[in-house]
Amino acid sequence: MLNRNPAAHDVAHLGHLQLFTPAFDESVEFFTHYLGMRTHGSQGSSVFLRAWDDYEHHTITLTPRTTAGIGRTHLRAADEDALQRRVEAIKEAGLGIGWTDGEPGYGPTYLFHDPDGHEFGLYYESEWFQPEEDTRPALKNQAEAYPGAGVCVRRLDHVNFLGVDVEANRDVLRDLLGAKVTEQIVLDDGSVAGSWTTFTNKGYDAVYTRDRLGITGRLHHIAFATDSRADILRAADLALEQDVFIETGPHKHAIQQTFFLYVYEPGGNRIELCNAGARLVLAPDWRTIDWTEAERAKGQAWGLKTIESFHTHGTPPAPGQ
Amino acid sequence: MLNRNPAAHDVAHLGHLQLFTPAFDESVEFFTHYLGMRTHGSQGSSVFLRAWDDYEHHTITLTPRTTAGIGRTHLRAADEDALQRRVEAIKEAGLGIGWTDGEPGYGPTYLFHDPDGHEFGLYYESEWFQPEEDTRPALKNQAEAYPGAGVCVRRLDHVNFLGVDVEANRDVLRDLLGAKVTEQIVLDDGSVAGSWTTFTNKGYDAVYTRDRLGITGRLHHIAFATDSRADILRAADLALEQDVFIETGPHKHAIQQTFFLYVYEPGGNRIELCNAGARLVLAPDWRTIDWTEAERAKGQAWGLKTIESFHTHGTPPAPGQ
Amino acid sequence: MLNRNPAAHDVAHLGHLQLFTPAFDESVEFFTHYLGMRTHGSQGSSVFLRAWDDYEHHTITLTPRTTAGIGRTHLRAADEDALQRRVEAIKEAGLGIGWTDGEPGYGPTYLFHDPDGHEFGLYYESEWFQPEEDTRPALKNQAEAYPGAGVCVRRLDHVNFLGVDVEANRDVLRDLLGAKVTEQIVLDDGSVAGSWTTFTNKGYDAVYTRDRLGITGRLHHIAFATDSRADILRAADLALEQDVFIETGPHKHAIQQTFFLYVYEPGGNRIELCNAGARLVLAPDWRTIDWTEAERAKGQAWGLKTIESFHTHGTPPAPGQ
Amino acid sequence: MLNRNPAAHDVAHLGHLQLFTPAFDESVEFFTHYLGMRTHGSQGSSVFLRAWDDYEHHTITLTPRTTAGIGRTHLRAADEDALQRRVEAIKEAGLGIGWTDGEPGYGPTYLFHDPDGHEFGLYYESEWFQPEEDTRPALKNQAEAYPGAGVCVRRLDHVNFLGVDVEANRDVLRDLLGAKVTEQIVLDDGSVAGSWTTFTNKGYDAVYTRDRLGITGRLHHIAFATDSRADILRAADLALEQDVFIETGPHKHAIQQTFFLYVYEPGGNRIELCNAGARLVLAPDWRTIDWTEAERAKGQAWGLKTIESFHTHGTPPAPGQ
Repeated sequence: MLNRNPAAHDVAHLGHLQLFTPAFDESVEFFTHYLGMRTHGSQGSSVFLRAWDDYEHHTITLTPRTTAGIGRTHLRAADEDALQRRVEAIKEAGLGIGWTDGEPGYGPTYLFHDPDGHEFGLYYESEWFQPEEDTRPALKNQAEAYPGAGVCVRRLDHVNFLGVDVEANRDVLRDLLGAKVTEQIVLDDGSVAGSWTTFTNKGYDAVYTRDRLGITGRLHHIAFATDSRADILRAADLALEQDVFIETGPHKHAIQQTFFLYVYEPGGNRIELCNAGARLVLAPDWRTIDWTEAERAKGQAWGLKTIESFHTHGTPPAPGQ
Repeated sequence: MLNRNPAAHDVAHLGHLQLFTPAFDESVEFFTHYLGMRTHGSQGSSVFLRAWDDYEHHTITLTPRTTAGIGRTHLRAADEDALQRRVEAIKEAGLGIGWTDGEPGYGPTYLFHDPDGHEFGLYYESEWFQPEEDTRPALKNQAEAYPGAGVCVRRLDHVNFLGVDVEANRDVLRDLLGAKVTEQIVLDDGSVAGSWTTFTNKGYDAVYTRDRLGITGRLHHIAFATDSRADILRAADLALEQDVFIETGPHKHAIQQTFFLYVYEPGGNRIELCNAGARLVLAPDWRTIDWTEAERAKGQAWGLKTIESFHTHGTPPAPGQ
Repeated sequence: MLNRNPAAHDVAHLGHLQLFTPAFDESVEFFTHYLGMRTHGSQGSSVFLRAWDDYEHHTITLTPRTTAGIGRTHLRAADEDALQRRVEAIKEAGLGIGWTDGEPGYGPTYLFHDPDGHEFGLYYESEWFQPEEDTRPALKNQAEAYPGAGVCVRRLDHVNFLGVDVEANRDVLRDLLGAKVTEQIVLDDGSVAGSWTTFTNKGYDAVYTRDRLGITGRLHHIAFATDSRADILRAADLALEQDVFIETGPHKHAIQQTFFLYVYEPGGNRIELCNAGARLVLAPDWRTIDWTEAERAKGQAWGLKTIESFHTHGTPPAPGQ
Repeated sequence: MLNRNPAAHDVAHLGHLQLFTPAFDESVEFFTHYLGMRTHGSQGSSVFLRAWDDYEHHTITLTPRTTAGIGRTHLRAADEDALQRRVEAIKEAGLGIGWTDGEPGYGPTYLFHDPDGHEFGLYYESEWFQPEEDTRPALKNQAEAYPGAGVCVRRLDHVNFLGVDVEANRDVLRDLLGAKVTEQIVLDDGSVAGSWTTFTNKGYDAVYTRDRLGITGRLHHIAFATDSRADILRAADLALEQDVFIETGPHKHAIQQTFFLYVYEPGGNRIELCNAGARLVLAPDWRTIDWTEAERAKGQAWGLKTIESFHTHGTPPAPGQ
């Protein structure tokens, strides 16, 4: 019998993320006009963004900065007790930073960092989003009205960090935060070049892939879920028409079988649009799938060769990129 | 702060179901040729069936019987400890029957019943499915090869029982088994006519709706998930071509927003094909959505009036039906 | 050997239509915000509308009027000679009215009427649409940029008139204009209750169905094509969210197998959104499909019963409707 | 005013094709099990194949041969007079071979060749397909029952020849057979490297692209239409699962905007699965779209670089390939 992770289910899901952009106005336009997200307030120079089925106050905090990249990644705990338990574990591991007020709409947040230097915040209190009259949904089991313009991403789906030491970072998610490791890339030398982890029944919520340039604290991409593969084809049509840069796709990943499209927002951050079909990881004793170098060399699921920039482009960009 | 259900996450997911049919051969043909499921062994007069992404030995046990209906519904516990905790709670509530050997591929199973008389089995041990050479999937993160013939349902999705007392039955799922109640139909007199509950991040795994004929122990329908709404339109095309009876749909439910098609298998059991898009219930403090009589009177999401048989047809059929 | 219709191919396709609405501002909002069409100029109290892949100046002329309904239906001839040939035939049949200047973007137009009193215009000269900088498409084989907001109908698809004498009206399309009759509803008494005719390889461009109220000159609906059935499901989602009245659908017609959604624009005219998949009528000797009363009683393709208003609602509305 | 092509509409559509394969049994398996076509009789060593909505006797004649490649391409005339007119024009141009009996289900056929040596047959008489009891469609406006297994291609869509002199070959289609030239690749030196022509309202039925290896009489690919882009994604899933070689795609062409997947059948012939959405060429005065070298260098519509084999692989294969 496999033992259940004692931290399992203490983190409920990925919450909200801070994103930096050197092209603020264009980035806002990308998130609203192209992706079809809505702004929900602002603070200082930052603007808050949300997808139509995100139930919390916001999921993206967009802030102008000289270089692109990811700021703090917030995770929502399952309840107050779970929050306290995870904070204790993090403190014990020596990764804690301390408590801070949450962003607007969010309660007390405990800050910490992974071994790679990415900053995280853990919180429980969250003010549910209340739509205004003009964005009230027709069906009351939905957070906000379906916008009908742009890609209309449904919700924030996952974050994919670059990390110098994938295993050390993964261990934090698994051992301190209760994540399940669903799939990995294991190189011929036995080292782990990529690790997909989940807090939910989705195949993955947080991913580390190896930073081939050896730079710490970078972002590979963040991803938003659409309801169907057809939505992603339409997103490609829209990208072409709206002059959004398509890096690769639409195509299907072998890992996790996600149907994907990768674009760059004007600030340079890579954004994925993804659809998993009805695929869920339901097994409580799921066995981590290991992908070998030989298997990875086959390319994506239907044979598309992985584009070179996928191995090098991250934010902040490497010096000289 | 809401208190988390102490039983939360002890049940991992809906496992496998027993279904009875008075038209055995035709029912097998329906599940294999129309739905695109595969048989996986047999025992006595029963045959075991599985969808291509079900990871366990089987999800449907189909058995010939003079009348259609549902037999035992099995739920998988998260681990051995969780299994023991739930068994204790069930015993304490006086609903326990006792231990039995599991079906082929499954370990010791604790039997109990709900107040309506539907039988359940709770288990943890499960033998993961191993594909034969000719059904080995191209991608190793998938249980079995995509069959490519028929509807190709991905996995068993949920069960919808009829119950004389919806609230009493719901309480067992919630209080003894740790389910979350996500949506309900609450009549003008305050009584609950339908209750949707979940053990996972899906909107629902097990549902009770009121048996208007006042009969106990009946089934409204079982449901299989497809990857897209397009798959369900194709399922309707196939039903037309293969002479499968379509009761209603394709259309979209207001409750849970599921895109659906309802057909009857040849034995008379109602089968739903469903797709939820990327919709998930991620909030640990999800607040139950209550639908009123007035809201229900509007019909399905896009205005389709609910067909009369939806309120009366169940299996076993009522005397005279 | 079947003889080819001597008028075949003289009419190239359905061109542009005049539509009347008693709720002008709301109707404009419907066509632009909901359907995703664009305005292209105006004249007097009328506004011109076009879908993104319509290659001509406009396809809908929307005009305020006390009652809803259809004005003139324009057909484009294949060339000048074809235009002259058809005008001669119409004159000979005593249905001609005379020449007039075309609407903006269109050349000389010959006016005539069908036996039911619907007015038609036949023209050849047409000024191809030239997009402005901000609606220039990314691909130059497309008329205008894909708008990305609303349903995004691709092009005007067909018109369905109500007629007191379906056969007399159909004969004009077939014998004077060269249409092919692809499918019909033939009642038990041998009379034709519906006739689907085409000038192209589409299954139908112009349809007459019997006006059960015996009123002349009415419209049953006009239709716009979308690229997929998924687009029509999305159109239903948008209708729900934008409070557009859905009469029936989405579902699939048995006749012509079109996937459909019927909505009413705010002025009361019925609008269909339709998708035919890859279905085309390519056979030069296509044999008209006759549907019997018994076959029609089965409802739509997947069994949906035809809604009562489908048999009575037309524009202008009947007195008292 | 543009003058209409005097031969316009004399050819109704692409009819049936002969295909050669050095791996006959595997190729039959590909067409039936993967594509979901059905066999319809045989003659000598050849087998006849048809898609479920092809209305004629068959559309592919598959014959074992030491090398892959295309045999005769048949076009159906609009009627007997049109057939005679085209035969006269072909004779006059010195490309005629003579009359022969048609294949089973087809009447007298006039043989000729294009300047590149590809053989053609022109016919009018055609025996409409009559389904057997077990493949009778549920809807009588459809040729045969939707098979429900494999890709389920709807109909033969187009043929793409390789030609040493694209212009000379195109001129035959346009001037002798009445095709409309809808799009072309025009190199910087003014020569035409690709020409898309149509007999119908589809964007193209017959295409010539330059044979970069300078070999005559080769095939680039034949294509089958599916009802949706979703069907093509599913075709890619099936190809992966059934070990069918995917050359490139799914992706969208800039030229004609077709959504595509290219696979090789086991004999080596390239097969395209294509969907055009609702796109049609309706304008009688359509102006040929010319694509420049610079525009082609951008790759496919969404940026996929054209795979090298697309420029070299044809059947029969070049010596040494």
